[in-house]
Amino acid sequence: MSRALAVEALSAEAFQPFGDVIMVQGAETHLINQGTTTRFHDLANIDVGAQGGVPLISIFRAVARAFPLRIEMLERHPLGSQAFFPLSDFDWMVVVAEGAGQPELETMRCFRACGDQGINYRPGIWHHPLVVLAPSQDFIVVDRGGKGDNLEERQILPADARMVSL
Amino acid sequence: MSRALAVEALSAEAFQPFGDVIMVQGAETHLINQGTTTRFHDLANIDVGAQGGVPLISIFRAVARAFPLRIEMLERHPLGSQAFFPLSDFDWMVVVAEGAGQPELETMRCFRACGDQGINYRPGIWHHPLVVLAPSQDFIVVDRGGKGDNLEERQILPADARMVSL
Repeated sequence: MSRALAVEALSAEAFQPFGDVIMVQGAETHLINQGTTTRFHDLANIDVGAQGGVPLISIFRAVARAFPLRIEMLERHPLGSQAFFPLSDFDWMVVVAEGAGQPELETMRCFRACGDQGINYRPGIWHHPLVVLAPSQDFIVVDRGGKGDNLEERQILPADARMVSL
Repeated sequence: MSRALAVEALSAEAFQPFGDVIMVQGAETHLINQGTTTRFHDLANIDVGAQGGVPLISIFRAVARAFPLRIEMLERHPLGSQAFFPLSDFDWMVVVAEGAGQPELETMRCFRACGDQGINYRPGIWHHPLVVLAPSQDFIVVDRGGKGDNLEERQILPADARMVSL
């Protein structure tokens, strides 16, 4: 039987080993545009320049996962950070792990993000592909374009898979 | 009496002199994440490297403008592109003009964007600060951080102001 993975609330402190939480809470703010706009400033560390990489803006459209969800693989992008921000106000899930050459499964964590929270993975952070709860959810994504091998995937042995329940 | 500025629907073709429209329609797509996610790929040309600039991710929270709206100033960012994507599904407005040292007021145009459309101003494009119609609307913004003077503002003489009506 697969081991359960606890679901934690997403916060900047809890996510610190993996990257940034993109949200207005706690941000540096500037009042701009003749007082009609608040700028919540510089919410993620975009780090995409390795091997001549450039930042890209894309939209990811993800369909709902079935729960309980079996975590059977993780991936990472060694050459660049990857930021996600939801375009509709539904909770979603973030699964990450520490580890250098391989994900260390004992460090795997699952965070439940609110619909007004995005995240930014640092380069090389192991993570599961998008896990959404709504039937469909779009995200603005800022990641790296350019040459070089920027995707590594690792399958997890069935006996080591983790199970996420709602 | 101020001259009326026509409101046009936003499209990639119409906006081409000013930058990119960020939207899924017409995008290059990739099916990723074991078929659970569609990536609408590389939707805007991020151009922020001048004078050592770096890309930033911020959130702008704008309050509604009163209409009819008098366009009395324009601004531009000579050192970097600036991308906006709405985080809630309300229409919003984009006012731009061509011009090198000064905005050429005869070229001013106003586009009504849908809530699933973002835009990316190329460096140096004259534009009005955010114009939202909802009481409040948040946007993900990708623009330039770094040294250098990246903001120019121009007031428009009262006789030359343009008026935007809903």
